[in-house]
Amino acid sequence: MEQVISSNVSRTIQTKLVLPPDTNHLGTIFGGTILAYIDEIAAIAAMKHSKKVVVTAAIDTVNFVSSAKSGDILTLEAFVLSTGNTSMKVYVKVECHQLDTDEKKLTTTSTLTMVALDDNGKPTPVPKVKLESDWEKELLNI
Amino acid sequence: MEQVISSNVSRTIQTKLVLPPDTNHLGTIFGGTILAYIDEIAAIAAMKHSKKVVVTAAIDTVNFVSSAKSGDILTLEAFVLSTGNTSMKVYVKVECHQLDTDEKKLTTTSTLTMVALDDNGKPTPVPKVKLESDWEKELLNI
Amino acid sequence: MEQVISSNVSRTIQTKLVLPPDTNHLGTIFGGTILAYIDEIAAIAAMKHSKKVVVTAAIDTVNFVSSAKSGDILTLEAFVLSTGNTSMKVYVKVECHQLDTDEKKLTTTSTLTMVALDDNGKPTPVPKVKLESDWEKELLNI
Amino acid sequence: MEQVISSNVSRTIQTKLVLPPDTNHLGTIFGGTILAYIDEIAAIAAMKHSKKVVVTAAIDTVNFVSSAKSGDILTLEAFVLSTGNTSMKVYVKVECHQLDTDEKKLTTTSTLTMVALDDNGKPTPVPKVKLESDWEKELLNI
Amino acid sequence: MEQVISSNVSRTIQTKLVLPPDTNHLGTIFGGTILAYIDEIAAIAAMKHSKKVVVTAAIDTVNFVSSAKSGDILTLEAFVLSTGNTSMKVYVKVECHQLDTDEKKLTTTSTLTMVALDDNGKPTPVPKVKLESDWEKELLNI
Amino acid sequence: MEQVISSNVSRTIQTKLVLPPDTNHLGTIFGGTILAYIDEIAAIAAMKHSKKVVVTAAIDTVNFVSSAKSGDILTLEAFVLSTGNTSMKVYVKVECHQLDTDEKKLTTTSTLTMVALDDNGKPTPVPKVKLESDWEKELLNI
Ligand SMILES: CC(C)(COP(=O)(O)OP(=O)(O)OC[C@H]1O[C@@H](n2cnc3c(N)ncnc32)[C@H](O)[C@@H]1OP(=O)(O)O)[C@@H](O)C(=O)NCCC(=O)NCCS
Ligand SMILES: CC(C)(COP(=O)(O)OP(=O)(O)OC[C@H]1O[C@@H](n2cnc3c(N)ncnc32)[C@H](O)[C@@H]1OP(=O)(O)O)[C@@H](O)C(=O)NCCC(=O)NCCS
Ligand SMILES: CC(C)(COP(=O)(O)OP(=O)(O)OC[C@H]1O[C@@H](n2cnc3c(N)ncnc32)[C@H](O)[C@@H]1OP(=O)(O)O)[C@@H](O)C(=O)NCCC(=O)NCCS
Ligand SMILES: CC(C)(COP(=O)(O)OP(=O)(O)OC[C@H]1O[C@@H](n2cnc3c(N)ncnc32)[C@H](O)[C@@H]1OP(=O)(O)O)[C@@H](O)C(=O)NCCC(=O)NCCS
Repeated sequence: MEQVISSNVSRTIQTKLVLPPDTNHLGTIFGGTILAYIDEIAAIAAMKHSKKVVVTAAIDTVNFVSSAKSGDILTLEAFVLSTGNTSMKVYVKVECHQLDTDEKKLTTTSTLTMVALDDNGKPTPVPKVKLESDWEKELLNI
Repeated sequence: MEQVISSNVSRTIQTKLVLPPDTNHLGTIFGGTILAYIDEIAAIAAMKHSKKVVVTAAIDTVNFVSSAKSGDILTLEAFVLSTGNTSMKVYVKVECHQLDTDEKKLTTTSTLTMVALDDNGKPTPVPKVKLESDWEKELLNI
Repeated sequence: MEQVISSNVSRTIQTKLVLPPDTNHLGTIFGGTILAYIDEIAAIAAMKHSKKVVVTAAIDTVNFVSSAKSGDILTLEAFVLSTGNTSMKVYVKVECHQLDTDEKKLTTTSTLTMVALDDNGKPTPVPKVKLESDWEKELLNI
Repeated sequence: MEQVISSNVSRTIQTKLVLPPDTNHLGTIFGGTILAYIDEIAAIAAMKHSKKVVVTAAIDTVNFVSSAKSGDILTLEAFVLSTGNTSMKVYVKVECHQLDTDEKKLTTTSTLTMVALDDNGKPTPVPKVKLESDWEKELLNI
Repeated sequence: MEQVISSNVSRTIQTKLVLPPDTNHLGTIFGGTILAYIDEIAAIAAMKHSKKVVVTAAIDTVNFVSSAKSGDILTLEAFVLSTGNTSMKVYVKVECHQLDTDEKKLTTTSTLTMVALDDNGKPTPVPKVKLESDWEKELLNI
Repeated sequence: MEQVISSNVSRTIQTKLVLPPDTNHLGTIFGGTILAYIDEIAAIAAMKHSKKVVVTAAIDTVNFVSSAKSGDILTLEAFVLSTGNTSMKVYVKVECHQLDTDEKKLTTTSTLTMVALDDNGKPTPVPKVKLESDWEKELLNI
């Protein structure tokens, strides 16, 4: 019987403090730093779902709708949204919390395709996912 | 009237994948890497509570009750447990998730004292904290 | 008169040796490391073109068509492909050179939108670009 | 006959320049950076004493009695203070040297328990230590 | 018949953006950062020529004739200049491009001796090199 | 009256554990990592002597007479050997301690020229140095 795993199993949260070395001369964070954070959390979510080593096959278009600056706090949330045979779509949301104004803004969202590998580095099947909430299911239609 | 802030405001979660550069020749993570993670998450929790820059005044004894190795996932949780005038006690729990066996173990817990600073680097008062659950309140008696 | 700048001005080349800390347990490079390299070279190309600080507004879908492993050499090439008013499309190509077999493979290509900022962090106009070769012009139709 | 090793064998000195990436927005060093330095030098001292791979079993309460800022020089000194069967107590002292005023201040002291491991990762006996000076011996009574 | 390889095979280009963490309190880059860049590109050039793992046997005197500061772009070029039996002389040139003034200046040049190693870590013969341009050949007389 | 400072004032010691990320595929440390360590300790020694910000003007030929591998301990010692008007010659010695065999070997020695800068980034006079031991004085004749 096929194994089905709740999206709560892969759900992963990261909290990052934006520090000066992550920023340019205007004090805003590099896009590449956020992309590396997104890939890292997507990999952790996919590993928790599949219990396998995973590699990134693709990352969908990322629009940086607002920036983050030194001293801000970034919160990332990720979970497995859907699965193929050996691949998993992982949804990642990045929000920025500016402490002095207590303002929270969306930085970006992204969807990545991660592939599970066996010990020989070959793609290997992954369990199905069961989404737990309505807002998660709506993401499938986007 | 004095401001009281829920422990849910400072609650912070981190998820870290243990990578080879963080480990010694037996593949177990350096204590110093975990200590740096603990200090970082405690600082973020204290910043969320106080909306101020914070510095670490002290970290209580840390016992590493089990190790973590390359490929494991560490989950850290932190929140402000109690407050003084300008200082905050932050509780941090670190758990290790070994993916292949799906085993979860406590790595360590720790309590740190963080002090909020004003723009001149002088200690500055912080709001009180309201703990939200019984297990949080029990930590006060340890 | 509007300034027009050759794509040779922004053309930027990077050569990276893949090292163990950049790789997972199967020895293949993290997607996030390559994404950070892509963003970094795109920013340098856009800075050379605009002589301004730049931020990443967007990165188009990235498909990792082949992987790179520890010991391989990655070559990245980037140049400004087209411009808007304050934005620049930067094309980035990543190739992997496996030294022992002397095999070279495409890792991925990507297009990023970088926006030039003035000293107040506001979008500011950039010069036009003049592409120098036919293969560069063909990229515009993709 | 049991082996006894002088504390001079494990004695280790580190000198670190505090750089901007190690500091917060007020320019003071992160506690976590110093904790990582303390663990690193304690591990080196314990490795020199035991000629084995070591892990950190525990670190005693650390009070940061004064801070260090960007441009200061930190000097760390460590040596094995006492031994159990497989464990070593390592004493670490951290001092800060502010160059412009030529002022030297204690940053913190700490005691760590390091355990020697054999090739299977099991605790393994370590030689005894012979303290060389009176101030070292006095530390045993604290 | 002895293999002869063009200097175009080993030619390697790097472009680096100078960031605040690479600089001292006056905003100028650390010499050690540039030395690490020089060694890295020389190793890549020697690996491309020899298709072997290489180690640095020596680096000739390096004079830093001008500095680079945060926001500048460094361009490094390297190629194998001459070969011994198991060793290669690699020439490295570092130039600094100051974007706001559009000024380009020589930072330094350097010559390194890299030795190719076989799988047992023993020096192993390398192909000869054929220089492609007159300015390359003139470097041999310096 | 001209200030004369003992070489003991600038004397600086560093102890580094060689870790896998610092090494190539044969497990030997990168030359560039050692060069960065050498520049860092020379800068600290020159700062302690001059109480000024310093930049590296030059580093003399470095011959790596033996290698260091993952798990080894590197000890660096540096002090100001002689002074000009605004420049200081700093001598650096690097030794490698292989723990399992307890063997200590010279890795390399090096001499660097560091220049003290005032707050405007201009070369500024430094005190003279008084060497304390015969072996230090002999280095002047090399
Ligand atoms: C990119 C940014 C500066 C645009 O600001 P804005 O207030 O929307 O400014 P404008 O509407 O004038 O847009 C400026 C240009 O960016 C382009 N742009 C904005 N968002 C874009 C997107 N997601 N994709 C492509 N282009 C985009 C606009 O089309 C416009 O181009 P043009 O001047 O060539 O016509 C702003 O969205 C921002 O700061 N984002 C975060 C950037 C960042 O910090 N990235 C790093 C990681 S968060
Ligand atoms: C430390 C560790 C090896 C001890 O293993 P163990 O199975 O408890 O072994 P033992 O009971 O034989 O204890 C070994 C020694 O460690 C000492 N020890 C164990 N836990 C300790 C603690 N929290 N504080 C002080 N000493 C401790 C014991 O007293 C004993 O000392 P002795 O041999 O000198 O009498 C084990 O707890 C461990 O692996 N912890 C994680 C260490 C680590 O990886 N740290 C890095 C970050 S997680
Ligand atoms: C470089 C090294 C491999 C040479 O080993 P060796 O036993 O002396 O071997 P050989 O005498 O056969 O020399 C090999 C080649 O290196 C050259 N070489 C050795 N030391 C050199 C030096 N200091 N400067 C220039 N060339 C040197 C030799 O001339 C010879 O060249 P050739 O084969 O083209 O004629 C050895 O000294 C070593 O491992 N050094 C450390 C390298 C290292 O790890 N560097 C990184 C930081 S420590
Ligand atoms: C080093 C530097 C400050 C010298 O500036 P300058 O305008 O030449 O100043 P001066 O001619 O007054 O020289 C100052 C001192 O440096 C010495 N010096 C300059 N270049 C030198 C070199 N290549 N080797 C040895 N000493 C050198 C001079 O002899 C003089 O010494 P003295 O005052 O003891 O007699 C300048 O060349 C520079 O900024 N270089 C870049 C330094 C740097 O940023 N390094 C890090 C990586 S790029």
